[in-house]
Amino acid sequence: MTSCSQYHPLAIDAVPQWDFETDVAVIGFGAAGACAAIEACAAGARVMLFERSSGSGGASALSGGEIYIGGGTDAQKAAGFDDTVEDFTKYLKLAGGPCADEAKCDLYGREALAHYQWLKDQGVPYRGNFLPGKVIEPTDDSTLIWSGSEAASPFRNHARPAPRGHVIQHMGWGGGRPLIDILEARARDLGAEIHVDARAVALIVDGDRVAGAVVRIDNADHFVRARKGVVLATGGFVFNEAMRRKYCPDSFRVNAPIGDKDDGVGIELGVSAGGDAIHMDQFFTTCPWTMPESHAFGVLVNVQGQRFINEDCYHGRVSRCAVDQPGGKVYQLLDLSTFEQPLDIAGITIAGTGETWEEVEAELGMPKGTLSATMAFYNEYARAGRDPLFDKQAPILRPLDQSPFVALELNFETSYFSFFTLGGLKTSTAGEVLDRAGQPIAGLFAAGRCTSGLPAWGHGYSSGLSLADCTFFGRQAGRKAAA
Amino acid sequence: MTSCSQYHPLAIDAVPQWDFETDVAVIGFGAAGACAAIEACAAGARVMLFERSSGSGGASALSGGEIYIGGGTDAQKAAGFDDTVEDFTKYLKLAGGPCADEAKCDLYGREALAHYQWLKDQGVPYRGNFLPGKVIEPTDDSTLIWSGSEAASPFRNHARPAPRGHVIQHMGWGGGRPLIDILEARARDLGAEIHVDARAVALIVDGDRVAGAVVRIDNADHFVRARKGVVLATGGFVFNEAMRRKYCPDSFRVNAPIGDKDDGVGIELGVSAGGDAIHMDQFFTTCPWTMPESHAFGVLVNVQGQRFINEDCYHGRVSRCAVDQPGGKVYQLLDLSTFEQPLDIAGITIAGTGETWEEVEAELGMPKGTLSATMAFYNEYARAGRDPLFDKQAPILRPLDQSPFVALELNFETSYFSFFTLGGLKTSTAGEVLDRAGQPIAGLFAAGRCTSGLPAWGHGYSSGLSLADCTFFGRQAGRKAAA
Repeated sequence: MTSCSQYHPLAIDAVPQWDFETDVAVIGFGAAGACAAIEACAAGARVMLFERSSGSGGASALSGGEIYIGGGTDAQKAAGFDDTVEDFTKYLKLAGGPCADEAKCDLYGREALAHYQWLKDQGVPYRGNFLPGKVIEPTDDSTLIWSGSEAASPFRNHARPAPRGHVIQHMGWGGGRPLIDILEARARDLGAEIHVDARAVALIVDGDRVAGAVVRIDNADHFVRARKGVVLATGGFVFNEAMRRKYCPDSFRVNAPIGDKDDGVGIELGVSAGGDAIHMDQFFTTCPWTMPESHAFGVLVNVQGQRFINEDCYHGRVSRCAVDQPGGKVYQLLDLSTFEQPLDIAGITIAGTGETWEEVEAELGMPKGTLSATMAFYNEYARAGRDPLFDKQAPILRPLDQSPFVALELNFETSYFSFFTLGGLKTSTAGEVLDRAGQPIAGLFAAGRCTSGLPAWGHGYSSGLSLADCTFFGRQAGRKAAA
Repeated sequence: MTSCSQYHPLAIDAVPQWDFETDVAVIGFGAAGACAAIEACAAGARVMLFERSSGSGGASALSGGEIYIGGGTDAQKAAGFDDTVEDFTKYLKLAGGPCADEAKCDLYGREALAHYQWLKDQGVPYRGNFLPGKVIEPTDDSTLIWSGSEAASPFRNHARPAPRGHVIQHMGWGGGRPLIDILEARARDLGAEIHVDARAVALIVDGDRVAGAVVRIDNADHFVRARKGVVLATGGFVFNEAMRRKYCPDSFRVNAPIGDKDDGVGIELGVSAGGDAIHMDQFFTTCPWTMPESHAFGVLVNVQGQRFINEDCYHGRVSRCAVDQPGGKVYQLLDLSTFEQPLDIAGITIAGTGETWEEVEAELGMPKGTLSATMAFYNEYARAGRDPLFDKQAPILRPLDQSPFVALELNFETSYFSFFTLGGLKTSTAGEVLDRAGQPIAGLFAAGRCTSGLPAWGHGYSSGLSLADCTFFGRQAGRKAAA
């Protein structure tokens, strides 16, 4: 898993025999692959799906099953939010930052309501109710939550806020697995042939066209003819250290890769056929610093005792900005009214306490007049309902003035900073893999985290963007491949 | 210049005729190409050099002609610096940060003294004297200056500082042109055949081996057979906006690309033959905020009024960290003893003045207790010779307490933030272009800014690293190609 293998394409003339023949071959059985298979089947194509693990899931099954959808859903309306396609699309572009694919944002902005209906049509249940507050996933079976930085600066100044995290109706955390189960069942019902323990190792090319793939089953190469196309849906490269070293070295600042065998194979296969891999330096990271939920009221400072972000942003944006700070750690400041014992799994430790912020500052070994001045300034303005430095909003904005005080240490190496990669193949809005000149590679499609899509920028990630991208652009790729 | 052209390799069978036949074809006539040509000639190979402009130079000729060399040169010793290979090598690795190519740092660390002698042997003059102070280039004909962050934290804590910017003896700025003139004369003397107005548009491949290149001369394709190898030395991609958008989008925060037709062609050609392009998100930037020289004593704050760096670092590191700050600008704070009118070309404007830092703060529209608190804290400690936040060192560290005070605005869009790209082809220490599995591509070599080399990380750049990389690894590539 730590070396870059070579995935040379195999010329069709060198194929000894066809072990499988299909119209569309889908590689990878997470949400992107499942949706590609469903749509390709629905379009009348014969579809085979090859998955290296022993069953469906991928990183999608490890997720909360949350999909970023806006523009005025039933759940949004029922909760009194008047979201529009314009605000939703604008937010998607802000979330993509300098890496935003505007065409993908525009298309998904227009089509997300129809996509939501499609998900329901596949059998994904949505209770349709809104759970207020700042939660990571619903702990009950609610299906709409705030899942990004919509209500925080600077996003709120450019796009009217609305909650857009639509979660499959499912009791508690972990909606990803039941979501995948439903998509898998649907793909099987429509006739997709599923082959597990089958790992793709090369594409097969016929001149400039991708004509199939080589998959390794029981340690033997099998040759798959895909008359209409191959869809790559194998996830990112968070578990490939050699790729991360070359393309995403800043990810070594953090420590807890999350995913399911995401070794970058789809990216390597796509590039081997002339594809273009973009924004490979981007990664998502988050540390569970808002759990317990009262900790969302905390203030974060760097080792200089300076604030660096409006802490009402999405926890992943705050965490990503934290990792930009020097010194290998940041501190989360809490008072009596907000502090609870952090989760064990978070690896967040108590670094200092005190009856005053001056005492905390001294315990942290910071010079007098750093952290304490930061907190005096913050509290003075917070009492007046303002954050002139970072524009944090009430009710998250509130003074931390009930002693005793505590400073928690979020250490990039020893606290739980989960992360995954965001860079990947450049694809068209139809899911075609594009070459470096921007032209589609005939017969080759891709979706999900082996592509650069809606969740393009680590500093702008919002929960549900990746599954939105996987499911919607997985469908696009499957449809186009079957066409 | 703003679209990514496609550079498909041409199969040798499709070559209609050979217009040129040589052992080694060098593409690009900056310092890297010149040094490759010299060494290939010296090894007995027939060498042809193709340059798209009408003469030699490239970005190298626009530079100061400064080469980063350490380990105990004559000039270092004469000035009383006892530099070692270990400290020098360690600094090279620190300067490369998370992108450092350790093998290249180790090799250059060991070989730099011999490389310095080689440069002298080619006829490059060095007066051998040291010019103290914090200068960008010598304004006289001195040949050794501080050109990086050696004496600044955190570098100074890991590698003993020494000045290592070795500049060709030349009166005033602009040593790059005379350096190139010397290298060009040497290449011509050794028999390299120079073809100008000749732009490479494709590689020619014979199976897995690069066998030549297609060059466009007078708008007609000419076919170059290179029996031993092709050396790509065409520079970075700072003038290719489409490539920057895909691979280096943060570079759009700044505004003044510098280089000479650096459109990324060498990277595209290398990738077209299976090469690997790495660290493509990295760029160098600098704003001339240390000119006049007294401005080096300034303090930089972001729009929140916070310091963010020890300002005694290399001006490019300070500038790159500045560009990470939110709000599109930073402020440089000066007092009566340090302020002079900024250079017109810098586009640095006076944003606020005052008899006290409180007045400056108010003029900038900052809340009371931000910038003024920063400066009160800074001055208090600076008077005691300490910078507890960022460890800035004396004599650059000194209080700014002689009113009136001024805040200059360094605006990323309107001030002169020059920049160029650092990412490029992954090469071996011998200059071989490597594929994504790390294997050399037969017949293909590269050097300079179309590769990722010693200057790998924008936040760690030091003056002279790029020319060190171009000249030394250009030589490596030329020798290996001729072997």
